[in-house]
Amino acid sequence: MAHIDLGIDETQFPGVSGLMRYRPETAKPLNELAEVLLRGPHSLSPGERELIAAYVSGLNECTFCCTSHSTFAAVQLQDGMPLVDQVRANPDAAPISVKMRALLRIASAVRISGRNVTTAMVEDARAEGATDLEIHDAVLIAAAFCMFNRYVDGLATFAPDGPDVYLESARRIVEFGYGSVG
Amino acid sequence: MAHIDLGIDETQFPGVSGLMRYRPETAKPLNELAEVLLRGPHSLSPGERELIAAYVSGLNECTFCCTSHSTFAAVQLQDGMPLVDQVRANPDAAPISVKMRALLRIASAVRISGRNVTTAMVEDARAEGATDLEIHDAVLIAAAFCMFNRYVDGLATFAPDGPDVYLESARRIVEFGYGSVG
Repeated sequence: MAHIDLGIDETQFPGVSGLMRYRPETAKPLNELAEVLLRGPHSLSPGERELIAAYVSGLNECTFCCTSHSTFAAVQLQDGMPLVDQVRANPDAAPISVKMRALLRIASAVRISGRNVTTAMVEDARAEGATDLEIHDAVLIAAAFCMFNRYVDGLATFAPDGPDVYLESARRIVEFGYGSVG
Repeated sequence: MAHIDLGIDETQFPGVSGLMRYRPETAKPLNELAEVLLRGPHSLSPGERELIAAYVSGLNECTFCCTSHSTFAAVQLQDGMPLVDQVRANPDAAPISVKMRALLRIASAVRISGRNVTTAMVEDARAEGATDLEIHDAVLIAAAFCMFNRYVDGLATFAPDGPDVYLESARRIVEFGYGSVG
């Protein structure tokens, strides 16, 4: 049960969706941020950007966000959940581009502290073809999920078991975008 | 120098302000989030909410955000920077309400991990008069600064010395709100 009374049935509105209903004033910019970062026009595909979100959420051990964004990545990537699982286990051994590996290394550093991102990490990413915008957004996606993970777990929201709820959210997000769920 | 080319003079647009100019699509929701959380209608004053932002940013050792939000808190609190310094050094010994101390303990836990917030911490805050909305916003302010701190430092933005730049930002934010700076 959440730490505060969200005024909703948590099984119907689990994780961040109950928080979005509770506080629509903050839900609006939070959904807009997710929409721009994960689904807006970009040289990285939505699936690749969801992979960064899933990877960071997994390292932060946030069950709701990690399961959600792993599912959102899986439904938008050709190799689906097996690839997401490989990336989460070890990005350097997963069959993704060397550029994505370099961006995930930056995301992993950001998760600990922004000051852990080194010039060498950024130069590596650039050498593998990453643009400044891709580096910027990898940093901001990782930072944003350090927020979302703490928000969802800091208020002890409910994380459903099983894939059904997450697959239904994925279907709605892919079709209608962030802001359509909850 | 920032890790990426922000296309601006970093001494003129330090810290997050250069990032906001570089990527206006993400700047918009980020500024709106800061405006709602730190300056929107609330039972906690803007000064009290900036204090949570300054405290978390200090623990995260983010020089730009900590100096900025310490200044923004100081100009909006009767006891100014001496009080901010006391809170940053030890909230439990600072002359603030017992409720604010309880909210800062929650913020400090969120900073490490959302899962570090305990039922006892939330019950303590509630016993000292904190409302569910105040607890919600303390969690989200702390979580949001775990994002902003990582964003600003993850891209190695410039943090000016001395109080002048921060006082000028404080003047503009108090008068015109977030979104007016940069």
